[in-house]
Amino acid sequence: MIETRGLGILAGGGLFPVKVAESAVRAGRPVHIVAISGEADATIEAFPHTWIKLGEVGRILKTLNKAECRELVIIGSVTRPDLSQVRFDLGGILNLPTILGLTIGGDDSLLSNVIRFFEARGFEVRGAHEVAPELLAGSGPIGRNRPGDQDIADIATGWDVVEALGGLDVGQACVVARSHVLAIEAAEGTDRMLGRCGELRQWGAKSFRRRRGVLVKCPKRGQELRVDMPAIGPRTIELVAAAGLSGVAVEASAVLIAERDRVAALADKLGVFVLGVER
Amino acid sequence: MIETRGLGILAGGGLFPVKVAESAVRAGRPVHIVAISGEADATIEAFPHTWIKLGEVGRILKTLNKAECRELVIIGSVTRPDLSQVRFDLGGILNLPTILGLTIGGDDSLLSNVIRFFEARGFEVRGAHEVAPELLAGSGPIGRNRPGDQDIADIATGWDVVEALGGLDVGQACVVARSHVLAIEAAEGTDRMLGRCGELRQWGAKSFRRRRGVLVKCPKRGQELRVDMPAIGPRTIELVAAAGLSGVAVEASAVLIAERDRVAALADKLGVFVLGVER
Repeated sequence: MIETRGLGILAGGGLFPVKVAESAVRAGRPVHIVAISGEADATIEAFPHTWIKLGEVGRILKTLNKAECRELVIIGSVTRPDLSQVRFDLGGILNLPTILGLTIGGDDSLLSNVIRFFEARGFEVRGAHEVAPELLAGSGPIGRNRPGDQDIADIATGWDVVEALGGLDVGQACVVARSHVLAIEAAEGTDRMLGRCGELRQWGAKSFRRRRGVLVKCPKRGQELRVDMPAIGPRTIELVAAAGLSGVAVEASAVLIAERDRVAALADKLGVFVLGVER
Repeated sequence: MIETRGLGILAGGGLFPVKVAESAVRAGRPVHIVAISGEADATIEAFPHTWIKLGEVGRILKTLNKAECRELVIIGSVTRPDLSQVRFDLGGILNLPTILGLTIGGDDSLLSNVIRFFEARGFEVRGAHEVAPELLAGSGPIGRNRPGDQDIADIATGWDVVEALGGLDVGQACVVARSHVLAIEAAEGTDRMLGRCGELRQWGAKSFRRRRGVLVKCPKRGQELRVDMPAIGPRTIELVAAAGLSGVAVEASAVLIAERDRVAALADKLGVFVLGVER
């Protein structure tokens, strides 16, 4: 069955909103992008769109209704807002208790609340991967490099680490080098975790510093994939290389890649592997 | 039974070597400190001592034998050495395969090898806490501040995190704030982990930034407590306060405190709690 209903895209920063819009349009669906000012990229203007400010919750709902979009994808990065600086419109003020309630607890409860908020108003919230499955990493290597035996053992250790943390709303990535867990990601984000792995490798003779260790990335168990899908991109590959790691393993069907071709080309150039693994 | 045999102390940096020596001498035991140049503090010279360089493995063994110390405590910090810069003496060269073998795998296997190395040469390796149990945190509060209800819930979550990681040779500390796991320590050390928690709190309105969250610190499960006991000190308290946390919970019978009085005074001054918890 071909989906022909309008698709709303609530767009934060980065390339994913445009990729999702392209995919939907290719499939013949009308789209309307509700773009968050200061976050969404100007390239979204290639599609029907409305710019809104964070806090204009009433306007988001009105815009989606007017564009007849009952299905909604929420995608893209949002800088953690300084709530004291956000001006709420009427819809925002009416929903302030819910919105402020979001700031308590782990990210998962926050994002589940966002979904509940839209669903309570008659929208269906879909994951980017449901609308644009070609954005998923998929199984197998990306680019021409392959993990060695030690890398494969390190990937297995990495899965064990994230698996062990699964019930605790933490552990979306870790770095393992020669069976030694170098870093575990919590609230700091993957980029910063990779930064500190680079620093950890400053000791020892330079000749010892050959490329080794892997970044393992996947959702936390129970992570709300509809609004919080892990992703890697060219920047991830650069940081993995700068940290002196051998490569990246991601969960094949639960990690997005916005720029697959650039990721592959960069991985080849920098000599790191990228591997999609079924869990 | 009072122990009267000589105690050797292989001393790295910090105050613990002297504290262990003081405790042993108070108990009537002769001590000899083998102090690592560039690491051990000059205050160790108050006791019978010999300065050695890292790599002078033969000299360490000879010194301990000459001082008739069959029991050995290995304590204090050692900057991770650049092996290309270490000059090994004959004992070191003969044992080079063992010593280089140490660099593979997690810290636990490294330190277990150190113990095996000395035990194979007839020494008994003792934990600092066995010789000087008063250095243990012990059960209950240190200083006058107490955790609140949210802190107690966060401590429980912190134990869950380190417990979950126990089998993976990682997870000696974490930070939890309002049920949200902010950071998990892997290879970077507690100080750096606390540093990034401070950075994570730079977002949001200043008025929201009241003190909350706890550092939970304990050994990894199976950690070799004889040579790798976790410790906190005044610097930990400063970093906990700087990160905006409410306090610290440590495993009562498995974490050392070198300067208990200074820790208590500083915690009181900075408004953070320090709590020893039985696991």
